Amino acid sequence: MTLLISDAEVAATLDAATTVAAMRDALLAAHAGHLVAPPRAAAPLAGGRLVLTAGQLVGEWYGYRSYDTFGHPGTEQLVVLHDARTGAVRAVAVGEELGSRRTGGLGGVAVDALARPDAATVGVLGSGRQAWTQLWATAAVRDLREVTVHSPNPAHRTAFAARVHAELGVPARPVDSASAAVRDRDVVLVATTSVTPVLAAADLAPGTHLNVVGFKQLDRHEFGTDLLDAAEVLVTDSPAQAGAYLPPMLAALPPYAGRLRDLGAVLAGAVPGRTGADQVSVFCSTGLAGTEVFLLDRMVRVGVAPA
Amino acid sequence: MTLLISDAEVAATLDAATTVAAMRDALLAAHAGHLVAPPRAAAPLAGGRLVLTAGQLVGEWYGYRSYDTFGHPGTEQLVVLHDARTGAVRAVAVGEELGSRRTGGLGGVAVDALARPDAATVGVLGSGRQAWTQLWATAAVRDLREVTVHSPNPAHRTAFAARVHAELGVPARPVDSASAAVRDRDVVLVATTSVTPVLAAADLAPGTHLNVVGFKQLDRHEFGTDLLDAAEVLVTDSPAQAGAYLPPMLAALPPYAGRLRDLGAVLAGAVPGRTGADQVSVFCSTGLAGTEVFLLDRMVRVGVAPA
Repeated sequence: MTLLISDAEVAATLDAATTVAAMRDALLAAHAGHLVAPPRAAAPLAGGRLVLTAGQLVGEWYGYRSYDTFGHPGTEQLVVLHDARTGAVRAVAVGEELGSRRTGGLGGVAVDALARPDAATVGVLGSGRQAWTQLWATAAVRDLREVTVHSPNPAHRTAFAARVHAELGVPARPVDSASAAVRDRDVVLVATTSVTPVLAAADLAPGTHLNVVGFKQLDRHEFGTDLLDAAEVLVTDSPAQAGAYLPPMLAALPPYAGRLRDLGAVLAGAVPGRTGADQVSVFCSTGLAGTEVFLLDRMVRVGVAPA
Repeated sequence: MTLLISDAEVAATLDAATTVAAMRDALLAAHAGHLVAPPRAAAPLAGGRLVLTAGQLVGEWYGYRSYDTFGHPGTEQLVVLHDARTGAVRAVAVGEELGSRRTGGLGGVAVDALARPDAATVGVLGSGRQAWTQLWATAAVRDLREVTVHSPNPAHRTAFAARVHAELGVPARPVDSASAAVRDRDVVLVATTSVTPVLAAADLAPGTHLNVVGFKQLDRHEFGTDLLDAAEVLVTDSPAQAGAYLPPMLAALPPYAGRLRDLGAVLAGAVPGRTGADQVSVFCSTGLAGTEVFLLDRMVRVGVAPA
């Protein structure tokens, strides 16, 4: 019997701690070679493409996420979980929430692994769904003292700050510039839709950790090479996917590619993460394929909560 | 709100007449260029592949079927229907029934278009799900007088004949050879898993129409070139898909490829079908992509019946 899972059920089941723990396990499984995630497959249609990202935990499950590029504001994705022993479909999640929490959870793992242990202040650039789940997951891995948020639209940044206070119980201030949002912060979360840099590395304090979630390619990027030059620790959740972007991802080009580390390898202790309190560290989020199905499997195992 | 549709609901909703009518509309839409069906996309996993066949009725819907090649006996496929105006997922069908009825429905359209109007006797080779849905759809387009069936396993052919009598109300006889099953038949349905020919064209009466559903490639085929040589009318539901098989489909190679006609074009009157009562006609089923989603859309429009 297949479970059909809604966004409301995802929200009721997957708290930040559960999600971050699942994504840590997924990154370690990928590093160990147990999580198989081939390049995405796509079918061209008139006006857009259907895209499938598959994943497999050998002997346990296989499945995929599907999404399209038509650009409907109300578009819904699917995440499908097959039982590897029978081929039966155990669950189908329809909507946006599982994917957003997945990306947030990966970001939370990165903050936990790479930010200073005493990190307590966060600057947020962006006020959308991705900015929210990055902060939501960050709050699960550090005791936060204050959040500053900037977004070009004053109403959006004000609403975001109010939500931080209401849902995460952390004091939060909307600020009227990106530099005010990121200055003297322990953690900076960049999750905008901008195609040009929204922050300057010169505004960052020594020791800041950043998650960058939005555009990061050669032709459009929410941060510039000044940030990559400043980063002593440069990490991604999938070096393979980072290397496969077209046009290329900035961090996957010389001189940065040679020092781009795998977050799973950092977690496993195979390569170092942060080695000094004054280092700037940057996590380039690519959304490791297969992690949506991994998270759906975890959700089914812990038991889907009623919406 | 997404509908999750089970095999039992498909069976309760899609009778043969509804299914054949939907597949006729789909073939005409494809011929008119309204039904977009790109080549399949696949993602390699350990031990198998995940495959996606997409489809789109421009301005109405888009979606896909997904299946895998792991070979589990209990594997389940998905068919997903998105609303083209919003991107929302209107329905997800999980199981095998929609796909089987889809293929049966295409076969029923072929029999209706290509068999003699007075066709009343049917020979069936094979006793599985595909053989059943071919006959089920054939019974919706012709008044049948008798069915003969052969399958190597005596218990299987006996059970199949009993089911024909019970569910379709048509007298049916299991017979102990393929030649006995196909001799003097108006319609022959070939739906086996054999990789070598199971029938001889010399056993067919003039004027027979055949649907061939199983293997039909250069390296494995349930019928031989003797059948293609005998066929004066040679038709498929997708010349593009027929031409894309690797290894190639027999009917898509010289000297057959040049006279392989599109069933949609026959339905539209753009190319002739049968022009004489003594002609042997052959329909090579490829499973026109996009038709599963077309059928799911039709099912949602007519209203899903309770299982």
